[in-house]
Order: sequence, then structure tokens, then C-alpha cells
Amino acid sequence: MNLKDGQTRPVRQTTEILSWLQNLLSHGSSRRSFLKTTATAGLTISSILTSSGYSNTLLSSKNREPYRLTEKNNVILFQGDSITDAGRSKGRLNKANEPRALGTGYVFLAACQLLAENFEAKPKIFNRGISGNKVYQLAERWDKDCIALKPDVVSILIGVNDYWHTLKHGYDGTVEKYEADYRALLERTRRELPTVTLVICEPFVLRCGEVNENWIGEFDRYRSAAKKVSAEFNTIFVPFQHVFDEATKKAPPSYWAGDGVHPTMAGAYLTAQAWLKVVLGKA
Amino acid sequence: MNLKDGQTRPVRQTTEILSWLQNLLSHGSSRRSFLKTTATAGLTISSILTSSGYSNTLLSSKNREPYRLTEKNNVILFQGDSITDAGRSKGRLNKANEPRALGTGYVFLAACQLLAENFEAKPKIFNRGISGNKVYQLAERWDKDCIALKPDVVSILIGVNDYWHTLKHGYDGTVEKYEADYRALLERTRRELPTVTLVICEPFVLRCGEVNENWIGEFDRYRSAAKKVSAEFNTIFVPFQHVFDEATKKAPPSYWAGDGVHPTMAGAYLTAQAWLKVVLGKA
Repeated sequence: MNLKDGQTRPVRQTTEILSWLQNLLSHGSSRRSFLKTTATAGLTISSILTSSGYSNTLLSSKNREPYRLTEKNNVILFQGDSITDAGRSKGRLNKANEPRALGTGYVFLAACQLLAENFEAKPKIFNRGISGNKVYQLAERWDKDCIALKPDVVSILIGVNDYWHTLKHGYDGTVEKYEADYRALLERTRRELPTVTLVICEPFVLRCGEVNENWIGEFDRYRSAAKKVSAEFNTIFVPFQHVFDEATKKAPPSYWAGDGVHPTMAGAYLTAQAWLKVVLGKA
Repeated sequence: MNLKDGQTRPVRQTTEILSWLQNLLSHGSSRRSFLKTTATAGLTISSILTSSGYSNTLLSSKNREPYRLTEKNNVILFQGDSITDAGRSKGRLNKANEPRALGTGYVFLAACQLLAENFEAKPKIFNRGISGNKVYQLAERWDKDCIALKPDVVSILIGVNDYWHTLKHGYDGTVEKYEADYRALLERTRRELPTVTLVICEPFVLRCGEVNENWIGEFDRYRSAAKKVSAEFNTIFVPFQHVFDEATKKAPPSYWAGDGVHPTMAGAYLTAQAWLKVVLGKA
């Protein structure tokens, strides 16, 4: 298999890699070019949007603008349950951009890309998700795990345990409590951090593992509640359930989340990409 | 900030995210579209290629074809030193695609994207990098940490310690030994795994932290040796040094690798993307 003396080796993709890199380092324009390309390549987008209650007329909202990171508003906090936690080291809480403190889920994946693409803003990224948390448990630790960090962006993914723990841990919460607690948490956040940008990530489940058909109808009510408070507070909303609904048309649910709740590495990649495109992406 | 009753929330980037997702799930075509776009957007590619000894004439080689993952050739092994190791758990060696066993560096980032984009091939990804390793130390553990895994793709990033340890640990190796050991390792690999696809990642340093100007000339000889054996064995070659040379035109070296050797999260993202585009990307 060796080449003869004097032969030079083949070089693969050198042109593409350097083009890509130069583009990426031109203020994140690679992702914008990417979106521009893919935005015209959708297949059945209209039907998906319609079936899910989305409407293109909403896209003209002033809130349509992506969040613009700068050095003056670059503190990003991810909050939530085990999906956010993703096994992060609790002993390295105070330092931003510390790999082990960010876990091995969507937060770490999103953070790496955020840092590479926003080298001028130099984001400071924290993960304070804790496994098993329900929305009222975020509230209990909100002063130290949110307000004290003075975040510019707070991204929250919470809800699956608010339902799941009623099945397996005897938790007596209801969807009404989830919605009321979530609303109170957002009110408090806006009061204490008047300029904060809020991101609500849609709770999601996949039909496999711990999740059976009995879940779906009831869990839909929690998803709807999250959407409702997102609308009330005019937050950015990341439609994770839709991402996984699309993904499971291509590969079995367990490929994306083994137990139906916690994303695999492939699932974490999808959630991270969805987060980046919705929160920071350009049309 | 609340919307009035009856108002619906604004929806951001919903069209783009679903377009992107559908595209991604169409056999990785999103990345191909991305490359197609960026390939025309390069600014000074020709001069970079010329200055680094690359030539477009080489791009017509038969070896130009990207590696095609299928279910029958989907075992990917990453090997190397601390940059590859990246703090992986040594207690979870046997299972493929185990997040903690993949560390928090370029391997984990590449693996997540590989799994998401290649759901039909279902790659099995292993990381057996060990901090501090030099090329002769890979050889010492090659039977159990490479051959036994029967990998279809073996990616190796090795070389910085072969030089660095001559400065700080009294190691008496030379660039000639590095090249000879590397050649022997590749010969053995091809002999034991006749159908394997080999990937050699270029060792790299950035001018900061532990790395001073005295390094550069000497370390260049190790980079050249890695390129030379790559050419001899007709392997895929990932030009990491070029990636970081470009990146440091945009942000200081320490933004990409704090000590000049180990990539930050931002640096790990660049290396992962470079690996994916060179090894699996399409022109």
C-alpha cells in the first residue's frame, strides 16, 4: 500500500476544510451560509409547521431576531434536570467554560460550538442542571444557581420529572402546579434580572424505554404548559419534541434516547444543534 | 413583557430548524450542502495551499473519496495522547459510544456528530488515547488497544510528547526515532488489519503557554515526519496545524489552546470539525 519514493501523498478535502474554517471564523458566517442553504432545501416543512400549530405569519415578529452575543452580554446559564446535568462535576461550579462542569450532554456540545464561533464575544457558559429536578426545585435554588450568576441568557429545560415522578416516586404534583410554578419562576427571574433573555426548551419524550403510550396524552399537557408560559413571557422557545418527532421517522426512538427520556450522544447532538439554531441562528 | 391573552407567541427559526433537521437526516446531506456552499466562499485558499506545499493537482487522486461508513465497516478507533484522551474514564473501556469513555475533547464532539449523521451505519466509536503517550508507547499497547478491537478506521494523533518530553522529562528520543517508530506501527497495523483505513492527524502547537519560539523549528520536524509516514502509507491526513494557524489569525492562541498544546473547548470544536470534514466530508 506504500507509495513509491518521490510520490507525494494524496490530500483530502484540504480546499473544503480551509474554506470552511475561514468561513467559520468570519463571525460565524458559516452557520448562516449553512442555514441559508438548508432553508431552501426543506421537503415537507409547511405540513410540519401547520400540523404543529406553527404559522409562517408569526415569523415576522420582532422577537424573530436571534440573540446577539457580545462581550457585554455573554453569560449563558443552562438550567434544568438530568438531561441538562448530564453527569456534570458538581465540584467545579464556579468557573465558566469548564468541560467537566458542563456534563456530557447538549450543554457541552452547544458550549463548544458557541465558544468556537463567538471568539469575539468570549461567552461564559454555566450548567446548573440537577438530575431529578422538577420546576419547584429550580425555584428552591434559584438565588444561588441563577440570580447570583447575573446571566444574560437563561435557558431552561424542565418538565419530564414533574410528570414522571408522579408515576414512579409518588410525587403528588399536577400539570397545574407545574404551570403555576413555572410562571412564578419566570416572573421572579424577570424581576431580578430585568434585561435577561429567557429561553424555554420544550420538554420531550420518545416512545421507548420508560415511556409507553399511556404517557403521551398526559405528558402533552406538560408540553403545552411550557409553551403557554413561553408565550406569556415572550421567551425564545426551542421545539425539542418536534426535533425528536422528525428524528424518529429516520431511526428508532431508542437510537436518540435509550430510555425515552435521556438523549443518547446522537440525541444530544440534535438538541444542541436545535438550541444553537433557534437561539442564535440566522434566517 | 407578557403578551395579551389570545396572542400567540413568536416562533423563532422554526422553518430553519426543521429544514436543517430534515436535511441532516437525509443521509448527511446537510453537511454536503454546507461544504458545497463554503467551498466557493474561500478567500485566500490558493495561497494557503501553496505556502503549505499542498497542490490542487493532488486532489484528483483516487484516495480523494471520503470514507463511507456502513453497518459492516463502522468501528472507529481514536488513538493518541492527552489531546485524544481528554480525561476519559478508563473504567469504561469495553463499550462503544460511552460518553465518559470518550473524554471531553475532539473525540467526543466528533463522535456525537458521527452518530447523529450516520444513524444507518450506527458507528461504534472507541477512544484509547492515553495522556503522556509517545509513539513507542502506542506500540507497547497496540495489541489490546487497537488490533483486538478490529477497527475499520484507526485515527492517530501523536507526536507532541515525543518532542516535549525531551525538554521536561529528560526523554532521550529523537525525531528519527519518532518517524521510525511511527512507520513500524503503521506497518504492523496494515499487516494485522489489512483492510483498515488509517487516519494520521497532524501534531500541532500554538505559540502560548508552554510553547515558546524555540519549539517551533524543532517541532516542525516532527510534523514533517508525521506527514511523511502518512504519505508513505497513503493514509488520510488531517492538517490540524493549518487549522490552528488560521484560527490564531482571529483570536489569540490561548483562546484555542491555553497551554499551547491542549485545545480548549473552542479548539476541540475546531479539531472535531476538521476531522469530520477531512475524513468523511464530501467535496
